[in-house]
Order: sequence, then C-alpha cells, then structure tokens
Amino acid sequence: MTKTKKSIVKTPEPPYYAVIFTSILRGEVEGYNDMAVEMNELAAQQPGFLGVETAREGALYGMTISYWKDEESILAWKNNAEHQWAQKLGREKWYQSYSLRVAKVERAYSGGKSG
Amino acid sequence: MTKTKKSIVKTPEPPYYAVIFTSILRGEVEGYNDMAVEMNELAAQQPGFLGVETAREGALYGMTISYWKDEESILAWKNNAEHQWAQKLGREKWYQSYSLRVAKVERAYSGGKSG
Repeated sequence: MTKTKKSIVKTPEPPYYAVIFTSILRGEVEGYNDMAVEMNELAAQQPGFLGVETAREGALYGMTISYWKDEESILAWKNNAEHQWAQKLGREKWYQSYSLRVAKVERAYSGGKSG
Repeated sequence: MTKTKKSIVKTPEPPYYAVIFTSILRGEVEGYNDMAVEMNELAAQQPGFLGVETAREGALYGMTISYWKDEESILAWKNNAEHQWAQKLGREKWYQSYSLRVAKVERAYSGGKSG
C-alpha cells in the first residue's frame, strides 16, 4: 500500500482556497487507500494546486484538505474526468456519509521547525 | 483515555467559518490526548461553536477543524483564558510544527446516511 507522507503544507499568503472533505466509509473498501493516494497525486498535477493534508483515524474515518489558488482551479479539478469517476464511486459505493466544504482562507499562522 | 466520537458535523447553510489546525507533535506527549479532548469540550461550550472534526494518524500527526458561526466567536475562543494556556503549551512544548488557518466556508455539500 502506498503511504502519503504526513506533512503540513507550506501555503502562500492568504487569500487562497481550502476544500475540506470529511468522510466515513461504509466498511473496509479494498483498494480505497490506493485510490485516495492516486487522487491526491492526480490533484497535485492540476493548475492552482497548493498542497494536501490528510489523516485517517481507524479504518473508516478520514479527513482530507486540499489547498487551491482560486475557485477556477477547484472547478477544473472537480470536472477532471478521472476525478469525476472517483467521485461517483464514492457517492454510490464507498461512503456511508461525507461532507465537502469549499472555504476561502483569510488568515493563516504557522510555527515550529517545518512550519 | 477519553475518546472523541468520530463524526461529520452537521453545519448550517454557509457562510460560516472553519478553523483548520494541523499539527505534528515533537514526540509522544503524556496527557496530550486528554488535553485535546478537554479543549474540544471547552470549545463546544463557547457561543457560536458549530462543531469539530478531528483525526489523528499515527502518534504525532493530527488535524482538527472547528466550525464557528462568525469571526467574533473565533476571536472570543482564541482569547479564552484556559485555551490561551493550552496554546502557549502547544507553541512552547508540544508541537514540532503546526499551522492554523481561518477560512470562510462559502459552499458545502453532503451525502449519505448521517450526512
């Protein structure tokens, strides 16, 4: 299984956008983690992508925040064909429940060694 | 150890605010989880608090998103005395690195049974 490196994204000065995705899987889905990693890698190739932070706790609960330059880049990623296929699978087969929030980051602070 | 229930917050119609806190601990901190749970419980008593979603992956990496009605409620929580003490401990002793982002949620979608 591919593992995403756990890190804190170095984002530029606000404003920029955050897409907050919280999900609970229906059960353990074979290949789900690989798909999630693949989607994050694909997102990273899109124009306007600034980074992604993700944590899974237990087998079913996950939070993923991707950061984007502007609304246009979020819309383009939403409409990406491969991503749309994953979205459809998620809605119809994988998730017991999910929430997606698009938010404009107005202020940001960081600290520490790699902050 | 107290355990936070893993759930997806039912937030009202946007706009509202999200405070996104991502952190990496310096090492395993005794009592850290209890403190984190206590802070979330204290936050839940503040005016304007809408809910919190949190996930820890491994011993050191954590993401917490708290949702708030408006900027005033975020500022009041930031200035809460007990919370300020926890913030100081975090900056000085606990975190190798952290990032805090204040974002205005503009659009939200949810799906599934409890979404």
